Amino acid sequence: MPEDCIFCRIVAGEIPSTIVYEDDHCVAFRDINPQAPTHVLVIPREHIVGMAELEGAAPELLGHLLMVAAEVARDGGLAESGYRTVINWGPDAGMEVAHLHIHVLGGRRMTWPPG
Amino acid sequence: MPEDCIFCRIVAGEIPSTIVYEDDHCVAFRDINPQAPTHVLVIPREHIVGMAELEGAAPELLGHLLMVAAEVARDGGLAESGYRTVINWGPDAGMEVAHLHIHVLGGRRMTWPPG
Repeated sequence: MPEDCIFCRIVAGEIPSTIVYEDDHCVAFRDINPQAPTHVLVIPREHIVGMAELEGAAPELLGHLLMVAAEVARDGGLAESGYRTVINWGPDAGMEVAHLHIHVLGGRRMTWPPG
Repeated sequence: MPEDCIFCRIVAGEIPSTIVYEDDHCVAFRDINPQAPTHVLVIPREHIVGMAELEGAAPELLGHLLMVAAEVARDGGLAESGYRTVINWGPDAGMEVAHLHIHVLGGRRMTWPPG
């Protein structure tokens, strides 16, 4: 675990967070700077930065993270109203923490373009 | 195939599109209303609307679509600069075509919030 990764420290319980879901592969918690009434981050427990680290296990893990995103949205009452899932890969996208994370946003009408 | 689904008709070749990648499971083509210098949509060939239709095959297919999104971004020279992947689920997210699709946006600095 990289000492300076804030998400690894959340997974380890060293930094408090509002966890809404967790399993053997991932943790979902509320974004501390929410951009919508519901704004949750789904992250793998493992310190994965980008596609390079995902080779091999990629489809299963990525798919699982998206399934968890959908479950979190459903638990949050967003299944019918809808929600947006966003992944920022690299600097142009504004990936602020270098640990793969899926944003789940809902509870308001999202606009276009998506940033 | 639903006759009124524009994405099914693109898959079938009935509506012209600029296809940048295709395989047995999915097709990737340029958004006709691009929101960034690179704006590609990755869709399953099958008419899948939401999570309900994905049960069972979901992790593998969703993961595969994201892997293809990454490949499209890499082919477009975005691997280093970065890119954003977005999925709109349902009305609040502005899902305009009811056929699952992943937006891949890059080639410019993306802003926050993501819409």
